Amino acid sequence: MARDLAIVLASGGMDSCVTTAFAARDHDLAMLHLNYGQRTERRELQAFHAIADHYHARERMVVSMEHLAQIGGSSLTDPDIPVTRADLRTTGIPTSYVPFRNANFLSVAVSWAEVLGAHTIYVGAVEEDSSGYPDCRRSFYDAFEAVIREGTKPSTRLSVVTPVVTCTKAERVTHAIALGAPLRLTWSCYVSEDVACGVCDSCALRLRGFYQAGVEDPLPYATRPVYT
Amino acid sequence: MARDLAIVLASGGMDSCVTTAFAARDHDLAMLHLNYGQRTERRELQAFHAIADHYHARERMVVSMEHLAQIGGSSLTDPDIPVTRADLRTTGIPTSYVPFRNANFLSVAVSWAEVLGAHTIYVGAVEEDSSGYPDCRRSFYDAFEAVIREGTKPSTRLSVVTPVVTCTKAERVTHAIALGAPLRLTWSCYVSEDVACGVCDSCALRLRGFYQAGVEDPLPYATRPVYT
Repeated sequence: MARDLAIVLASGGMDSCVTTAFAARDHDLAMLHLNYGQRTERRELQAFHAIADHYHARERMVVSMEHLAQIGGSSLTDPDIPVTRADLRTTGIPTSYVPFRNANFLSVAVSWAEVLGAHTIYVGAVEEDSSGYPDCRRSFYDAFEAVIREGTKPSTRLSVVTPVVTCTKAERVTHAIALGAPLRLTWSCYVSEDVACGVCDSCALRLRGFYQAGVEDPLPYATRPVYT
Repeated sequence: MARDLAIVLASGGMDSCVTTAFAARDHDLAMLHLNYGQRTERRELQAFHAIADHYHARERMVVSMEHLAQIGGSSLTDPDIPVTRADLRTTGIPTSYVPFRNANFLSVAVSWAEVLGAHTIYVGAVEEDSSGYPDCRRSFYDAFEAVIREGTKPSTRLSVVTPVVTCTKAERVTHAIALGAPLRLTWSCYVSEDVACGVCDSCALRLRGFYQAGVEDPLPYATRPVYT
């Protein structure tokens, strides 16, 4: 029997993979991938489809948000802004911050949810080591739920679930293993599309998470520093 | 001397034209048009550029939001859903409602504002005769301002101004005349791109507004019923 449908915002990275695993426990899946001109889009999309295949997603949609590249302001989309090498001790907003990205993404998810009649949107946002992205905090999603209540049809009931928002990367690795999430299918590197670089922010956070969880990352890396 | 920059969300219709006139009193303009696969996009875009030219906009951007057509659910974007003839007595959500459209639009505006360093976004939303669109009420924009505070850089200060949100259509016509807004350059019809149909919701509301303001609408109409 078909279960209640949930939208899952999935980049193809580790956090969206474990979030998909959480969603799949209770829901049939409508998986949504947003392409916004990021450097490694081709590889991320491949990971997205592999994860959607793995979970037999009932619906899937890929949406082009190329205006985020057109607007610029981020090293993820603007070739003139270099991707900084990881320094996990720094604080503040990293150059990879894409202005208000997650509101753009959530808005698409809500529009789709209203048409599909879904009642839940899963997002793999993480407060802890998202290293200063303001739109990854739970308070942002709480505020967005108020916007959903105000801005959709009176009959629409829709909540935004962020199952790993307070988890450390090590805890996400542990959850992923426990839920059988296919981490081998994911992609995280911000720089490279074949062999992960091992030194960008995203690789560093991922490798540190696996190290701290005591688990071997199944992906190949060009260089595999130990981040403790 | 350059004045503070404001983003104006402008469809090319009457309400965005009078909103642009309000913004232009205090700001230089960064005008933003969103194309979402609506039936009369070509004509609206022409109106948008004419209004932006009129106000010597410092920046302008046209963004494709074709995912709203891809998602569907509205007579404005889905050829299989007919545009209903106007019945201004009905209540409830009209078929032209595009699910959560204004949140999609505002998210783009906020991303652009963060990169440009603008502090104000003008939106021509109207509660009264937007005939049941939930995302046209001021309470929606208040909730969205909370999302902006939570989801942008700590240094970002950004408010959403809706100068005509509580006005009747007649009051908007009156404001437009007082501010010298170029209503002859606007386009409102949901159905036609050369001569306005006069019978869709949008034409009916517009014609009623001009009638009640005691002003002649400068646009040509295929048929011009009197809506009192």
